[in-house]
Amino acid sequence: MVILIQCKDRVGLVAAITGVLAARNLNIVSMREHVDVQANVFFARIVSAQETAVEELQLQLKAVLPVDANISINPEPEKKIVLLVTKEYHCLSDILVRNHFNTLGASVQAVIGNHAVLQDICERFDIPFHFITHENKSKETFEQELMQQINAYAFDYIILAKFMRILSPSFVQQFALKIINIHHSFLPAFIGANPYRQAHSRGVKMIGATAHYVTNDLDEGPIIEQQIIPVNHTFGIEDMIKAGKEIEKAVLAKALKLLFEDRVFVYQNKTIVFEY
Amino acid sequence: MVILIQCKDRVGLVAAITGVLAARNLNIVSMREHVDVQANVFFARIVSAQETAVEELQLQLKAVLPVDANISINPEPEKKIVLLVTKEYHCLSDILVRNHFNTLGASVQAVIGNHAVLQDICERFDIPFHFITHENKSKETFEQELMQQINAYAFDYIILAKFMRILSPSFVQQFALKIINIHHSFLPAFIGANPYRQAHSRGVKMIGATAHYVTNDLDEGPIIEQQIIPVNHTFGIEDMIKAGKEIEKAVLAKALKLLFEDRVFVYQNKTIVFEY
Amino acid sequence: MVILIQCKDRVGLVAAITGVLAARNLNIVSMREHVDVQANVFFARIVSAQETAVEELQLQLKAVLPVDANISINPEPEKKIVLLVTKEYHCLSDILVRNHFNTLGASVQAVIGNHAVLQDICERFDIPFHFITHENKSKETFEQELMQQINAYAFDYIILAKFMRILSPSFVQQFALKIINIHHSFLPAFIGANPYRQAHSRGVKMIGATAHYVTNDLDEGPIIEQQIIPVNHTFGIEDMIKAGKEIEKAVLAKALKLLFEDRVFVYQNKTIVFEY
Amino acid sequence: MVILIQCKDRVGLVAAITGVLAARNLNIVSMREHVDVQANVFFARIVSAQETAVEELQLQLKAVLPVDANISINPEPEKKIVLLVTKEYHCLSDILVRNHFNTLGASVQAVIGNHAVLQDICERFDIPFHFITHENKSKETFEQELMQQINAYAFDYIILAKFMRILSPSFVQQFALKIINIHHSFLPAFIGANPYRQAHSRGVKMIGATAHYVTNDLDEGPIIEQQIIPVNHTFGIEDMIKAGKEIEKAVLAKALKLLFEDRVFVYQNKTIVFEY
Repeated sequence: MVILIQCKDRVGLVAAITGVLAARNLNIVSMREHVDVQANVFFARIVSAQETAVEELQLQLKAVLPVDANISINPEPEKKIVLLVTKEYHCLSDILVRNHFNTLGASVQAVIGNHAVLQDICERFDIPFHFITHENKSKETFEQELMQQINAYAFDYIILAKFMRILSPSFVQQFALKIINIHHSFLPAFIGANPYRQAHSRGVKMIGATAHYVTNDLDEGPIIEQQIIPVNHTFGIEDMIKAGKEIEKAVLAKALKLLFEDRVFVYQNKTIVFEY
Repeated sequence: MVILIQCKDRVGLVAAITGVLAARNLNIVSMREHVDVQANVFFARIVSAQETAVEELQLQLKAVLPVDANISINPEPEKKIVLLVTKEYHCLSDILVRNHFNTLGASVQAVIGNHAVLQDICERFDIPFHFITHENKSKETFEQELMQQINAYAFDYIILAKFMRILSPSFVQQFALKIINIHHSFLPAFIGANPYRQAHSRGVKMIGATAHYVTNDLDEGPIIEQQIIPVNHTFGIEDMIKAGKEIEKAVLAKALKLLFEDRVFVYQNKTIVFEY
Repeated sequence: MVILIQCKDRVGLVAAITGVLAARNLNIVSMREHVDVQANVFFARIVSAQETAVEELQLQLKAVLPVDANISINPEPEKKIVLLVTKEYHCLSDILVRNHFNTLGASVQAVIGNHAVLQDICERFDIPFHFITHENKSKETFEQELMQQINAYAFDYIILAKFMRILSPSFVQQFALKIINIHHSFLPAFIGANPYRQAHSRGVKMIGATAHYVTNDLDEGPIIEQQIIPVNHTFGIEDMIKAGKEIEKAVLAKALKLLFEDRVFVYQNKTIVFEY
Repeated sequence: MVILIQCKDRVGLVAAITGVLAARNLNIVSMREHVDVQANVFFARIVSAQETAVEELQLQLKAVLPVDANISINPEPEKKIVLLVTKEYHCLSDILVRNHFNTLGASVQAVIGNHAVLQDICERFDIPFHFITHENKSKETFEQELMQQINAYAFDYIILAKFMRILSPSFVQQFALKIINIHHSFLPAFIGANPYRQAHSRGVKMIGATAHYVTNDLDEGPIIEQQIIPVNHTFGIEDMIKAGKEIEKAVLAKALKLLFEDRVFVYQNKTIVFEY
């Protein structure tokens, strides 16, 4: 079983937690722990080989932890997700393939596109696709339609798999820490539109991609994963875009894996990622 | 021998150039060529296994190339450099060691520091060190003293090996495309002071370093080389600085190698780097 | 247009070739050239922005090059490929998706599997799938059936996208330099079966993948592309296999891109790869 | 303070250990734990912000742990090391520079060379250098002289910083898990002599380096750190050697940092490395 704990730090926390586990005869196979010393916050991810009565364990842990402790035992092992897309197929297809072969670690409920071009690939994988255009309507109306369609599904996360519309703060607030974006640059370089154009113009020797939680500030949410690839003077903007798609796909896949395995904690504007 | 050519592009350029070489019985071992299609500029780096009369070859190439052509034959094989430093030893020492064992591909003429702490390491390697403080004097006076000391040496490049003072445009203009800096971030992310503080605060998952030519705009000159290393939530600012030093050292070493082997062309605000 | 040349090296080769091109008013946008100095062999890949009469150009180049010269002008821009697979979906799906969206740079003619499990994914993408079991028949019979089915298609390359049977020398000889394999290790480490088991047992800190031409010696053909990812003590064999699939997929995709763009020359047991 | 524990695994181990720490009012800042499930062995590295009476803590931990438990509290914070070298300066100089500026995390006691060429650089850093030739004597005699000189110093580790002689099993046994080597390949590829020649001949697209403990089997000891860099067809053997030196230097530096910070456990023929 997996146990996630986030709370104020104090002496004896690990002893208290693991004492509860030992009393229930749970052997700890893997334990990752982090203390943000400045903020005095404690984070832990504990994996036990055995299972036990979850509610009892929850109560026992609650009894030994600070009152504000955030305890999550056996979080949903298979997350449900809804994808928002525009026209680019590379991230979506990668997710659909993994979903199809049951290796995504999550279950794709539906795909919503503000263009219809990706409907075909979704149908090939028997995934519901909803076309909601942003044209000829206010942003407010567009987002209300999105929201209504999203809320027709049970979901843990909304994945922006190259969704090229900026969501308003009011939309984002409805789904706090539930929206994940893949940004086509090594943030915080090249915030905003046309990062590859910016990168080409600046003559950088590497381009990257960043998977992050979406918050109210554009491209400023907590970063989950970043990777880069080298480029050089022979890369035109189109070549950078092509190369960028490979890294976007890889970074989003990695971030989702971490997320779906419950390895990511968010605190203030940063993540604690208990990687392998 | 090495031949570097930069000129307006036109049909037949390679044929014209290599025709001259073939007529002189020079075999081309390696040829790298790039055309900036938008700007219509041609760049080439040609290596021949044989030597020939340089002045004659220069005239013959001039005769077949556009009038504005920039032709450099057998550029100085061992560049002379002057280093500017402040307090950090890691880049300087790496350069001094390579210089000492004759693997730098350049010859260190002198080191100038605005603090005296690195005098000792220079003396251990028999390299002249000049201490020029920036304190209690105007920036103008400081830079005049620097300039005077630099100009006491013959040099091809001035290397800012963690020199922590911003040079004024008038200083930089005196040494156009002759000053190389190592910046402690993956530019254009975290321009300016305290990039590691910025990186830590933003919660990035990678930090980098950038070696670039110094131009009037701070941290905006043509980029020669960039590399990154992964970081995570366990890295405090001090840990990032330590990790950053490793990558700064490596990036500057790589950039200098490229530079000293005459593999770098500059055009507008970008570099063409003919790597291995 | 793209021109590929491989021949004995001699003085004046580039001048002769580019002289022909200039006389036909062809502007060279990109030219990559390599001389294997030990073997005295010349390789070139030239890209011109203009087109011209191919047969005439071929004759003119032939006239100025050594008799044994291998000249290829405008090689098939869209290669045709046949895939051989067993049970693993990750490489196949990646190729099918790119093929479907016309970004593979090649056209998948058919997939042949020695198991039937990947038939479904092929059908979802309207790609013919042929199931040819290796069971209850001799290797010779199995390979004859394979060969017959492969030869039912026009193809430039046979891609072993995780085909887990070893092909006999007589099979391989029929398709010299036309079979590409993705090997699940950083060759030449862990040649043969179960490389991840070997890697886990050895306690390596990185695992890799290698795309290579198939020759008679198992896992010994010319290497096109290699990449690695870090692993650590927390990775069990299963985790290594999962991580390995990501890198296998990426390495095969990169190798095929290079191949389909005519950037790979083979000489003796090595490749010359004119990358970006 | 730092606490290292290695013992048989059992339920309640973490609770027992951290209970002892909590009772002494020690707050855990960082805790890394690993269970080798197959071997049923538990490894932990615990960092506390506070100090306490070491001997008392040792006894208390001993009381709650299996009898065979290996407990190390506050291991020597500044390791002492002796270096063995031959002729190559790159790894040695890097270590000497860090040692000189007190950032090595260890203290270099002496350097022993089987050639004299590196004596000068040692003297420049005021480090004792002992020249012990291997010529005109038996391997046994040579190693006895080495051993005698090494044992003239107090040391925690012997670092083979490009020491090009193979040490005999009897020598190695005297210093079990105390000898660290940097091997110039990505082990287990290219075991033995001339790995760059092997790599060049095989046409690999990456070369690497491996830092490992030395055991009786040549190049077969537990691996601490590995890294790679890309190479291509333009790299001759000499270019590979040059590029390899950069990665050897970086890998050895990283491995020593991990070692000196007590982040490396050895079990059977593998390491558990609690990285950042």
